[in-house]
Amino acid sequence: MGGNDQQAYDRGTSLFSPDGRIYQVEYAREAVSRGAPSVGVRTGDGVVFVAMSRASSTLMEAESIEKLHKLDDHLGTASAGHVADARQLIDLARRQSQGNRLRYGEPVGVETLTKFVTDHIQENTQRGGTRPYGAALLIGGIDDGEPRLFAADPSGTPNEWKATVIGGGRSDIQGHLEEEWTEGLSLDAGVELGVAALAAHDDEFEPADLAVATVTEADGYQTLSVEEIAEAFDAAGLTTEDDEGDEADDADDEE
Amino acid sequence: MGGNDQQAYDRGTSLFSPDGRIYQVEYAREAVSRGAPSVGVRTGDGVVFVAMSRASSTLMEAESIEKLHKLDDHLGTASAGHVADARQLIDLARRQSQGNRLRYGEPVGVETLTKFVTDHIQENTQRGGTRPYGAALLIGGIDDGEPRLFAADPSGTPNEWKATVIGGGRSDIQGHLEEEWTEGLSLDAGVELGVAALAAHDDEFEPADLAVATVTEADGYQTLSVEEIAEAFDAAGLTTEDDEGDEADDADDEE
Amino acid sequence: MGGNDQQAYDRGTSLFSPDGRIYQVEYAREAVSRGAPSVGVRTGDGVVFVAMSRASSTLMEAESIEKLHKLDDHLGTASAGHVADARQLIDLARRQSQGNRLRYGEPVGVETLTKFVTDHIQENTQRGGTRPYGAALLIGGIDDGEPRLFAADPSGTPNEWKATVIGGGRSDIQGHLEEEWTEGLSLDAGVELGVAALAAHDDEFEPADLAVATVTEADGYQTLSVEEIAEAFDAAGLTTEDDEGDEADDADDEE
Amino acid sequence: MGGNDQQAYDRGTSLFSPDGRIYQVEYAREAVSRGAPSVGVRTGDGVVFVAMSRASSTLMEAESIEKLHKLDDHLGTASAGHVADARQLIDLARRQSQGNRLRYGEPVGVETLTKFVTDHIQENTQRGGTRPYGAALLIGGIDDGEPRLFAADPSGTPNEWKATVIGGGRSDIQGHLEEEWTEGLSLDAGVELGVAALAAHDDEFEPADLAVATVTEADGYQTLSVEEIAEAFDAAGLTTEDDEGDEADDADDEE
Amino acid sequence: MGGNDQQAYDRGTSLFSPDGRIYQVEYAREAVSRGAPSVGVRTGDGVVFVAMSRASSTLMEAESIEKLHKLDDHLGTASAGHVADARQLIDLARRQSQGNRLRYGEPVGVETLTKFVTDHIQENTQRGGTRPYGAALLIGGIDDGEPRLFAADPSGTPNEWKATVIGGGRSDIQGHLEEEWTEGLSLDAGVELGVAALAAHDDEFEPADLAVATVTEADGYQTLSVEEIAEAFDAAGLTTEDDEGDEADDADDEE
Amino acid sequence: MGGNDQQAYDRGTSLFSPDGRIYQVEYAREAVSRGAPSVGVRTGDGVVFVAMSRASSTLMEAESIEKLHKLDDHLGTASAGHVADARQLIDLARRQSQGNRLRYGEPVGVETLTKFVTDHIQENTQRGGTRPYGAALLIGGIDDGEPRLFAADPSGTPNEWKATVIGGGRSDIQGHLEEEWTEGLSLDAGVELGVAALAAHDDEFEPADLAVATVTEADGYQTLSVEEIAEAFDAAGLTTEDDEGDEADDADDEE
Amino acid sequence: MGGNDQQAYDRGTSLFSPDGRIYQVEYAREAVSRGAPSVGVRTGDGVVFVAMSRASSTLMEAESIEKLHKLDDHLGTASAGHVADARQLIDLARRQSQGNRLRYGEPVGVETLTKFVTDHIQENTQRGGTRPYGAALLIGGIDDGEPRLFAADPSGTPNEWKATVIGGGRSDIQGHLEEEWTEGLSLDAGVELGVAALAAHDDEFEPADLAVATVTEADGYQTLSVEEIAEAFDAAGLTTEDDEGDEADDADDEE
Repeated sequence: MGGNDQQAYDRGTSLFSPDGRIYQVEYAREAVSRGAPSVGVRTGDGVVFVAMSRASSTLMEAESIEKLHKLDDHLGTASAGHVADARQLIDLARRQSQGNRLRYGEPVGVETLTKFVTDHIQENTQRGGTRPYGAALLIGGIDDGEPRLFAADPSGTPNEWKATVIGGGRSDIQGHLEEEWTEGLSLDAGVELGVAALAAHDDEFEPADLAVATVTEADGYQTLSVEEIAEAFDAAGLTTEDDEGDEADDADDEE
Repeated sequence: MGGNDQQAYDRGTSLFSPDGRIYQVEYAREAVSRGAPSVGVRTGDGVVFVAMSRASSTLMEAESIEKLHKLDDHLGTASAGHVADARQLIDLARRQSQGNRLRYGEPVGVETLTKFVTDHIQENTQRGGTRPYGAALLIGGIDDGEPRLFAADPSGTPNEWKATVIGGGRSDIQGHLEEEWTEGLSLDAGVELGVAALAAHDDEFEPADLAVATVTEADGYQTLSVEEIAEAFDAAGLTTEDDEGDEADDADDEE
Repeated sequence: MGGNDQQAYDRGTSLFSPDGRIYQVEYAREAVSRGAPSVGVRTGDGVVFVAMSRASSTLMEAESIEKLHKLDDHLGTASAGHVADARQLIDLARRQSQGNRLRYGEPVGVETLTKFVTDHIQENTQRGGTRPYGAALLIGGIDDGEPRLFAADPSGTPNEWKATVIGGGRSDIQGHLEEEWTEGLSLDAGVELGVAALAAHDDEFEPADLAVATVTEADGYQTLSVEEIAEAFDAAGLTTEDDEGDEADDADDEE
Repeated sequence: MGGNDQQAYDRGTSLFSPDGRIYQVEYAREAVSRGAPSVGVRTGDGVVFVAMSRASSTLMEAESIEKLHKLDDHLGTASAGHVADARQLIDLARRQSQGNRLRYGEPVGVETLTKFVTDHIQENTQRGGTRPYGAALLIGGIDDGEPRLFAADPSGTPNEWKATVIGGGRSDIQGHLEEEWTEGLSLDAGVELGVAALAAHDDEFEPADLAVATVTEADGYQTLSVEEIAEAFDAAGLTTEDDEGDEADDADDEE
Repeated sequence: MGGNDQQAYDRGTSLFSPDGRIYQVEYAREAVSRGAPSVGVRTGDGVVFVAMSRASSTLMEAESIEKLHKLDDHLGTASAGHVADARQLIDLARRQSQGNRLRYGEPVGVETLTKFVTDHIQENTQRGGTRPYGAALLIGGIDDGEPRLFAADPSGTPNEWKATVIGGGRSDIQGHLEEEWTEGLSLDAGVELGVAALAAHDDEFEPADLAVATVTEADGYQTLSVEEIAEAFDAAGLTTEDDEGDEADDADDEE
Repeated sequence: MGGNDQQAYDRGTSLFSPDGRIYQVEYAREAVSRGAPSVGVRTGDGVVFVAMSRASSTLMEAESIEKLHKLDDHLGTASAGHVADARQLIDLARRQSQGNRLRYGEPVGVETLTKFVTDHIQENTQRGGTRPYGAALLIGGIDDGEPRLFAADPSGTPNEWKATVIGGGRSDIQGHLEEEWTEGLSLDAGVELGVAALAAHDDEFEPADLAVATVTEADGYQTLSVEEIAEAFDAAGLTTEDDEGDEADDADDEE
Repeated sequence: MGGNDQQAYDRGTSLFSPDGRIYQVEYAREAVSRGAPSVGVRTGDGVVFVAMSRASSTLMEAESIEKLHKLDDHLGTASAGHVADARQLIDLARRQSQGNRLRYGEPVGVETLTKFVTDHIQENTQRGGTRPYGAALLIGGIDDGEPRLFAADPSGTPNEWKATVIGGGRSDIQGHLEEEWTEGLSLDAGVELGVAALAAHDDEFEPADLAVATVTEADGYQTLSVEEIAEAFDAAGLTTEDDEGDEADDADDEE
């Protein structure tokens, strides 16, 4: 199908192409894969999120890039893609989590919350007057004592995973996860696996370029310090280098 | 009719072409046929749903693909096509089933429910500002003691079937069903027929790649364990292989 | 007028072409003529509907194709064209019939009901944001003891007929009706005429491929059994054959 | 101005062309002139309407074509053009007439009613989201004892006439009226003039192909029987023929 | 600027072209100049309106062309251009005049009323979803004893004039007015000037082809009889001819 | 960037071009520069407005061109560009001034009022369904005893000036102002400077072609008589000529 | 990707391109980089804003260019890009700051306010019927005693910075900041750094061409006098020149 034909389906946000595809959704996925990757790993003890969040300038506050967010005591999320879009989805998820607590006095389930978010995403792929969200989320936490991890993509499809990645370098990183993930990993091993998986695609990063969070029954949502990340870094057998930061230079809204 | 002419009718979601077709509806059907197939079989004892739900990665939780859903005690559904779209329709069907119970104290009829869903689908093919749903549903269950099975396609047409398939490989699978289906099949024979019909199109799958559910007067909506599926697999004379999963790799929203 | 010029008027649902035509309405008529035909015959005793409703698969329940519908005790309808569209119009007609009974305690008149439906159809040809209905209806019944038969087409024009056909093969079938219809036909002769008229266009069908209903003062809306249809079949001098069903194969939403 | 330029102004329903024309309105007039003609004649005793309403099939009930309508005791209308559009305007006029009676206890004036209708028509030529009406009306009746006759065209312009025609064959028919009309005609002479004027364009019609109505102070709105029409036919010196009906065959929504 | 470029700005009703023009407004002016001219003359005693209102057929009632309208006791208007559009503006002006009387017990000022109308016209040139009005108005009357005359054009610009013309033949007619108008004309001289100015463009008209109205302090809004118009005709040195009416034949909505 | 590319951005009223420009706003500025110029000068004693307001016909009342308006006792405005658009903005400013007096019992500040108007202008450059305003305003007056002068352009940017010009011939006129303006000018010198600045671009005008107004603490908003303007004319060393008026002939809505 | 393809994605404000970009957002960024730069520097004592605000004419009041604004006692903002757009965002931020004070009796947090503004910006990149904002903001102030500085870009992405620049010349200026910024700068050193950073891109400016503001715990939001700016100018080792102002000539709405 030539460039000219394809254009016709691109313009209207919510039309099918003759082969049954919705291009705007596929392009939104492309926006996600332009961003830095975020990995989620389900372990025996809880869920691990490892996100690449390398600042585009040494003067940017790394934590302001915000790839990982706490949604509730035992519920967290990692994002990839268009930052401003991801923020809308995270706000939506957070408000829904809080609302659930207020109404029912208990945390929302991981699956329930994911589906609430994906329903909203789907609507933006079908109704006119809007474009799809150019962002994907991992949503993970503890549900009745069990760690669970879901991914929500720009089509609004929810899927449950043992371990997965959203954002750029997906095939390398998912491949590493598929090879190395095993049932009943310890939390530390999960962090190490997440870090190593990211390195399978691009190993030129420092501990400070990563954000890591864990959600466990015992401790709820916790972020790791750069020192703790460095330990996982060493455990994964990665060496640190000094030449970094330039290729991410003009991509500060796709992270 | 050349590519150029066709485009003209594609852009507006709800226009007729000179030969009286609505392209967006036909493209939505194409989206359905890009997905994995789901088979429905009416037997003497109840309705059988057999869905191909092969995960695109070994780390994806197979059950999260969710091709089969319970709608009510004696009512289930199988979907094919764009997953996020199907989820909207299933939610709609489920809310309507629950509402019927609340209002009238009794389950909604299979035909009534199907027509409620297809009316909603049809509206999305006629009003502007939206695209059609890129998903099809089988809706089946027990109505006054009788098993009944309906299909709802992207045009919003409801049809009742003895046995049918939605999704990819339709001509092979429907052909097998037409040859082999007989009145008064046992439930087990129905499961076996569903599995064998899927294999008529593509026999490189494992019991774990399938989801099977049955709806009977006696037991209501039941899902089969992978062991039970394996039995049907054997009964249907199918052998299992080990090389699978790669071709489904990048199709996780059309299942 | 070349293909290029024509396109210009197709895109906007409700625009006139330079020669004063509304293409979308004409294309909607084309959608109707792609469907199987339905015949209506006014007889001395009541109205007869004969519809071709051949299933696209041996496993499809023929009655689910539903070309004929009871609207009220003495009021019925036959449809042709886009099935999902026809269903909307039939629902509208049925709700209006029921509402009339509730409000006034008496059945709605055949002409009044037809005009209510055609007003709704017309609106969809003039206002933006929607396409016309791709379906036509015959509406017939007993009005103050008199049988009356109307047709409603995609432009929203109501016309009263002694006997007519909607859907495919119109010129052959209407020609047969014009030659053979006489005032004061018996109900049986009306059924026979309807069957024979359909055969004037395409005689490769079985009694089971037809649906027949009658509306009389005495018995109200009645559907004929396949045996009764077979009698009319014989009376019309038609022979049955066995090779059927393939050409209707992929047209299950235009019936 | 070439075909290409003209297209540009056709697409938007309510735009001016560089030479100050509104093409959609002109195309709507074309739709009117594709229909059969309706003549109105003001006589000393009242207003006469003569409409060509030849059925497209011998089985169509001629009266269902409905070109002439009573609006109130002393008020009638004749239409030409797109039948379904005309029906909307006639309904509007009738509701307004009835509303006037209810509110003020007296009939609406001929001019007042015409302007109410033309204001509505004009709006459809200026606002977006709709097309103009493809129909014209003659509105005539008795106002304070005086016969008055108005025409409303697709631009929404009201004009008062002594005698005029809407629909096809306008120049021949209006020419005949201009030559033959005289002040103070009797009602019978008015009917005869209307019939003869139609014949000036196309004389191959039978009395049964015409509908005639009169509005007088004494008798209000009256329709003529086919015998009365035949008398006018003879009086006008017209002979009847037998070969008719074929050229009108596929024009059942532009009458 | 070529034909192709110009098209781009024509389609959207309210866009600027690169040279700062709004084409739809200019095309609406073209619609006005296609119509017959209307002249307004301010005299010492009051305002005079002279409008060409030649019927397109001898059977059309000349007064139904309605180019001149009384708005209030001392307030009148003359229109040019698209008749149905002008009618909307005149209705608006009349309702506003009546509303002013009801609310404040006194007539609306000429300037105030004009600006109310032009504000409404301007809105139709800026907001989407509508086209500009294809009509211009002269609004004149007595304001605190002083005659005043304003013109409102399709851009919504109000201007006050001593004497001016709207509609076709503007340069000839305005030129004549500029040469001949003097301060303190008598009312009769004003009528004569108006008639002569129209003849400066096209002198093939009869007294009956004109409509003339005057607004004076003493007599309010008065229309002249055809005899009075004939006197002005003679006074202006014009001769009458008999060959008329053919060129206006197909322009009955641009007068 | 070629003509073809530019078109793409022109059609949508509120889109950016690849180089970050909003063409519709730039074209609206072009509409302003097609109009006659208006100059504002801040002097030690108050603000001076000098506007070219040459009538397009000797019969047009010059004051009806209305380039200068009093907004409140110590607040005035001068406009340039599309007259009907400017009128909307002036009405907005006037209503806001009056509302401020009613609510707070004191005049609105010059800066506050300007920003209220520019906020409204900006909205018309960002939201769909409308075009920008094709007009610019100077707003000036006395604020706490201090003369202040602001300009509002079609982008909605407010700027404060010592002296500036809006409308045609901007570079010549602004250049003259930059050379000649000095702090603490007398009011008379300000009028003289304004007149001379206009002449720097085009000196073929008469005192009667100008409108001049001043706003001072002592006298509030005052308009100058043609004699007073003639004095400034002489003081500025300008001679009057007699051949004028032809080039402004067809520009009566861009003044 | 050629010019033609790119156009397709430009027209709809909120569509993705095949490579996952939203062109309108990128063009809005281009609008920002066409404007003069504004620098923000976080120091040990507070936040410093330095903005280039060179008037396009010697008669324009420099302070009316308004690049720096106080939002609350300890909160300020600097803007770059389309002035009228920036004003809307600043008004939004100011209203939100004031509302926070009224509701909670305390100042809004710097991060909270920034995210409120960026959420609003993001909405304008996703919903139809509007274009993105062509402006960027720096928002800085004291939060619980700590200086904090955020940037908001046209995509609606919020980022926290130690020091950054928005507007033109970004790579030169940001480079200078990255080289020279150190933790715990004094406020004066921060001003000097800001001035020097601007000069790294373009050193032809005078102290009067700059606007500088500081926000400290002790003194809140303060603007510097031109003398204070001159001191920083000297301290930064910059010399002043006399030839300035011409290149900024026609850029008065992108500052």
